Amino acid sequence: MSPAPLNPHPDRLLPADPGVRDIARELYQVAAELPIISPHGHVPAEWLADDEPFSDPTSLLLTPDHYTNRMLHSAGGVDLAELGVPVGSEMDEELSRSAFRKLCENWKYLRGTPVQFWFESEFHDVFGVKVRPSAETADEIYDQIAECLTRDEYRPRALYKRFNIEALATTDDPCSDLSAHQKLANDPGWDGRVVPTFRPDAYLEPARPAWRELTSNLAEVTDVDIVDYASHVEAMRVRRRFFKNNGAVSTDHSHADAGTARLSDAQAEQLFQQALGGTITPTDGDALRRHMLNDQARLAVDDGLVMTLHPAVYRNHDTGAQERFGADVGGDVPTAVEFTRALQPMLDAYGNADGFHLVVFTMDETVFSRELAPLAGWYRGMFVGAPWWFIDEADAIMRFRRSVTGYAGFAKTSGFIDDTRAFCSIPARHDVSRRVDSAFLANLVAEHRLAMDEALETIVDLTSTQPKKVFKL
Amino acid sequence: MSPAPLNPHPDRLLPADPGVRDIARELYQVAAELPIISPHGHVPAEWLADDEPFSDPTSLLLTPDHYTNRMLHSAGGVDLAELGVPVGSEMDEELSRSAFRKLCENWKYLRGTPVQFWFESEFHDVFGVKVRPSAETADEIYDQIAECLTRDEYRPRALYKRFNIEALATTDDPCSDLSAHQKLANDPGWDGRVVPTFRPDAYLEPARPAWRELTSNLAEVTDVDIVDYASHVEAMRVRRRFFKNNGAVSTDHSHADAGTARLSDAQAEQLFQQALGGTITPTDGDALRRHMLNDQARLAVDDGLVMTLHPAVYRNHDTGAQERFGADVGGDVPTAVEFTRALQPMLDAYGNADGFHLVVFTMDETVFSRELAPLAGWYRGMFVGAPWWFIDEADAIMRFRRSVTGYAGFAKTSGFIDDTRAFCSIPARHDVSRRVDSAFLANLVAEHRLAMDEALETIVDLTSTQPKKVFKL
Amino acid sequence: MSPAPLNPHPDRLLPADPGVRDIARELYQVAAELPIISPHGHVPAEWLADDEPFSDPTSLLLTPDHYTNRMLHSAGGVDLAELGVPVGSEMDEELSRSAFRKLCENWKYLRGTPVQFWFESEFHDVFGVKVRPSAETADEIYDQIAECLTRDEYRPRALYKRFNIEALATTDDPCSDLSAHQKLANDPGWDGRVVPTFRPDAYLEPARPAWRELTSNLAEVTDVDIVDYASHVEAMRVRRRFFKNNGAVSTDHSHADAGTARLSDAQAEQLFQQALGGTITPTDGDALRRHMLNDQARLAVDDGLVMTLHPAVYRNHDTGAQERFGADVGGDVPTAVEFTRALQPMLDAYGNADGFHLVVFTMDETVFSRELAPLAGWYRGMFVGAPWWFIDEADAIMRFRRSVTGYAGFAKTSGFIDDTRAFCSIPARHDVSRRVDSAFLANLVAEHRLAMDEALETIVDLTSTQPKKVFKL
Repeated sequence: MSPAPLNPHPDRLLPADPGVRDIARELYQVAAELPIISPHGHVPAEWLADDEPFSDPTSLLLTPDHYTNRMLHSAGGVDLAELGVPVGSEMDEELSRSAFRKLCENWKYLRGTPVQFWFESEFHDVFGVKVRPSAETADEIYDQIAECLTRDEYRPRALYKRFNIEALATTDDPCSDLSAHQKLANDPGWDGRVVPTFRPDAYLEPARPAWRELTSNLAEVTDVDIVDYASHVEAMRVRRRFFKNNGAVSTDHSHADAGTARLSDAQAEQLFQQALGGTITPTDGDALRRHMLNDQARLAVDDGLVMTLHPAVYRNHDTGAQERFGADVGGDVPTAVEFTRALQPMLDAYGNADGFHLVVFTMDETVFSRELAPLAGWYRGMFVGAPWWFIDEADAIMRFRRSVTGYAGFAKTSGFIDDTRAFCSIPARHDVSRRVDSAFLANLVAEHRLAMDEALETIVDLTSTQPKKVFKL
Repeated sequence: MSPAPLNPHPDRLLPADPGVRDIARELYQVAAELPIISPHGHVPAEWLADDEPFSDPTSLLLTPDHYTNRMLHSAGGVDLAELGVPVGSEMDEELSRSAFRKLCENWKYLRGTPVQFWFESEFHDVFGVKVRPSAETADEIYDQIAECLTRDEYRPRALYKRFNIEALATTDDPCSDLSAHQKLANDPGWDGRVVPTFRPDAYLEPARPAWRELTSNLAEVTDVDIVDYASHVEAMRVRRRFFKNNGAVSTDHSHADAGTARLSDAQAEQLFQQALGGTITPTDGDALRRHMLNDQARLAVDDGLVMTLHPAVYRNHDTGAQERFGADVGGDVPTAVEFTRALQPMLDAYGNADGFHLVVFTMDETVFSRELAPLAGWYRGMFVGAPWWFIDEADAIMRFRRSVTGYAGFAKTSGFIDDTRAFCSIPARHDVSRRVDSAFLANLVAEHRLAMDEALETIVDLTSTQPKKVFKL
Repeated sequence: MSPAPLNPHPDRLLPADPGVRDIARELYQVAAELPIISPHGHVPAEWLADDEPFSDPTSLLLTPDHYTNRMLHSAGGVDLAELGVPVGSEMDEELSRSAFRKLCENWKYLRGTPVQFWFESEFHDVFGVKVRPSAETADEIYDQIAECLTRDEYRPRALYKRFNIEALATTDDPCSDLSAHQKLANDPGWDGRVVPTFRPDAYLEPARPAWRELTSNLAEVTDVDIVDYASHVEAMRVRRRFFKNNGAVSTDHSHADAGTARLSDAQAEQLFQQALGGTITPTDGDALRRHMLNDQARLAVDDGLVMTLHPAVYRNHDTGAQERFGADVGGDVPTAVEFTRALQPMLDAYGNADGFHLVVFTMDETVFSRELAPLAGWYRGMFVGAPWWFIDEADAIMRFRRSVTGYAGFAKTSGFIDDTRAFCSIPARHDVSRRVDSAFLANLVAEHRLAMDEALETIVDLTSTQPKKVFKL
């Protein structure tokens, strides 16, 4: 028996009803042509700066993608080490091929998930694969992709162009020298746009063991003598400026909660001294972190960097996996989140300030209609972030639009965020969003809630205008 | 180029599938003919008592509607003062026209929101507007509406009749003399029904600064010497009776939480004395308020007034806006709410009592299937309130039906509540609900979950029978 | 006028769109033929062991079904005593008939609920009823069902076969002698499968008044001298083994929260001694219970029994009903639940252990996408339980699939659970699930997200393969 074909349908994810699908198809055609705006992600800038060929299919497609790793681990019983995790482990042809075979053998477990959609699109559209992954077809597909990777047209920059990317953001440590970004900026042969993102999380958690060393590094890098709270803020200001000067448009923040309550200056100073001395309690560390986050907003009003927030994840839930493979391999689990009270101090102070932009992401869908749409529907600077992580899939994106549009409309949403390390999945991820937005708008048109000319303008807004406006790109 | 037409489609909000739409249309035709029952809202009774012509388009349509104000503020960057906020500010032709122009210029930001639907319906159906609002058409539309308002057929009573309103509730302070209601009752030329609603929130918050003065007023109005907890309850009883004698059918309650826990008599008395003395703490004030709310239910069992609850909103989130424009301009944001434990003391005591009706509203959709449907599915007197505020739009109404029907059916839901100050939007708001209920029922019929004769009876129940039964109208 | 017919449509619950319905019908045909796997429920094993004829329609269909009781109570104002509640009350022809009449008179209140669907299916498919229930048809239907019950083909074993049940689980006290199960096992004329389930809730709540007597019984039944924490665990181990030897495949756990935090051995011992002495506080009782639940997982790793959890219900919310009718008559109401933190200690320790299976159920839908799918999408032994109780109806089942599939796929879900005492409703309950799963998959196929061969395999997995694998049946 010949293997099942892999032939992604041009209408996938568009509504089943023939009349609505016709409308959706017309909208999608417009969206599909637009360049990709990716204001938050994790692709290493070095890839584009160095433009070296990718080494092998697994290192490129599988190892760095914790979505896939998790599914193979939980449903397929695969050990992460068999997939080359952690990134940077030794990788050879044999491991690469056997890891890829794991993916194909367990293909069934991806059914109905976005991972299936992404791989089908990548395999077919990027690498020309024509057969469905399975134990039988694993080697054939592996060989085909491996062969592609030897060709110049599969180097990072060539793919960047082919993917029609207009802007791509990386995520960077505040002390990073951004050398890859500078290399790109100084390369006359490069005409793309890769911007760094200032991610100071670890520097704003004063009760964590690593904080004192980080603060010492920060002092060194900035030449600011960090002896009190004010000098810490100053050091932050300096690095934010450095990032901005190197193209950054936003800062990114993820903590256990979204709190932004201010302390009195005296309290902040007292806790800061305890932090410097290594005696601050976890509870006081949280209080000082909330105060510091509030001050990041103050700095944002000054320097214009967009602020993104995505709190409320239980990190490294599986401590055994963390010990073996390190952080960020997939053992994170969302928790319920609260924004109305948590953001009040910050929004009350800066929410309507000129140029202040705050984009709030959530993995807890309950806040879309209850908190985020009402907040974005009041404060000028506040935007509802599109679903990402855990909920960056078709049904959740549809629920997001259905939950926030009624109250916040389209102009107070962020545009799609791919947030990925899996470079070749970027077009597929954005494609899902464009298809679902087209489907959503098509339903509005079919139910006579929106005129077709309004929908056509809106699909361009959602895909392109809105993310550029929100992220000042 | 001629402006885009404004021509609301007769089938708007009905399902796109042709077969289902046919069923929905048949149901909607029945609903569309029925009079409007509006058991909770904020239209001033004076408008109907005095029947004076409305002064200008903005004062009538825009200034009092915080939905619209919020969208123009958050997405359009409009200052509320430019819209004539707060209600009662000086208004002249120039401000009225320029405010209306702001609405039209920012029309795009209303896409996909209920505000767009409401305005399209009002403009077209009530004022005969035939062009889509925009910067270009703003003055033309303004003039057309302003001209209408000079005519007798646009006076409040004429509109009341034209809107086919059968009953309209206002919301009133317990010390109100209800003079406008009495004027209407004594006016032989008036054959409509405008009923007051007893809203004692501020009188049940003993730790708030205003409470002592309110209590003193209450004592004066009732001639009850409020010296202890029992006399406070007695004063409440007196005013409830006054309201009932003036046509009231319900009392309305909104606090930070839904708690109804009782104190011992001695505790209640002790806290009440502290309240009278101005020394009660906020925490004790909350405890006493929950006890008082529980007693409102006891009074309700006696006098038969329906009790409505809609807790859990963070009021005046933007303190700057509150300082400039006062309360209730739009800076309120919902929070998560809990009902199962909070309502237990009250429901356990009165939930099955003869004639006791409790309608619980929420802006937190998570409680529909988790708490409200199960509670209404057990207690005889408990009803699930339809979505309102923040979630009174098509998609949320559909989610509401899909979340509560499975467990609580149709007979334990309240019927639609418009809750509005925007008089001319009342027909459009009820129309949305009728269309969505028709769509929901049509889907049940199309999926063979309900026979057509059952659906036809149910659409009448939902639109008319049910709200009259629940609110004893 | 002749009464309305009762004629359930073969396509009920399948999607309205003709194209999608064709796909759904093809999938459903496959599912409809498969035997019923019922891994958790409340049908008494004695019914099948003794195979006595059922006495009357009400005792069989109405009295034990708290879904129906609640709706008649809350919407119809029926007193539970009029329905023969509590189970075991005196029942005669007159009460049985009048109770059944209550159901038929209040038929309207069941519209849109699963109760309507179940009764329509049972009445029509099991008893051949052809008229819609109403005051007019009540006696005719009653007589028809009563006549059926006199026939051998309506005895429990005949119905078990007719219902095409492959496995049926009961729920049993740890001290139960499982005599009915043993009788079945020793009956050469019985070739079905009825398995007990170990439900130790009351034995794991050390602060409850009944705990000491239960512990004393447990000691007697196991011959273990329960003098310390270790001997309590040992007694548990003994009874789990006894259950397993009598066919059990799972243990079932329902507490106020899902906590699994461990105490130190010394703390556990200290609290256990307080529990034995009757001096443990409720708070410490909860702490010890969480530790005990954690140890149930440890025992499960050893003996391979599947663990099911369904926490977070406020039991006996209406204390008056509890006093009159006892527990479990319907006065339970869900509360919000938290799993990410609560399950961390247990999952961190055992979540990836060989053979460990944990199925987590919820009545709080918010955790499906936020917590349960992410947890099941990481831990090998963790499965998301299908919606049951309160949310075991078509729309909620559809929401469940739409919420968990994106992240956890199909292979990390449990299969349908009927959880019922209403024996004759079992086929109808499973039928709802099969129809909705068919509809869900048909939509994926119609939107080109899944190939038809994948969907056909998946519908068999969901109906049959998956529940057998998850519950080791």
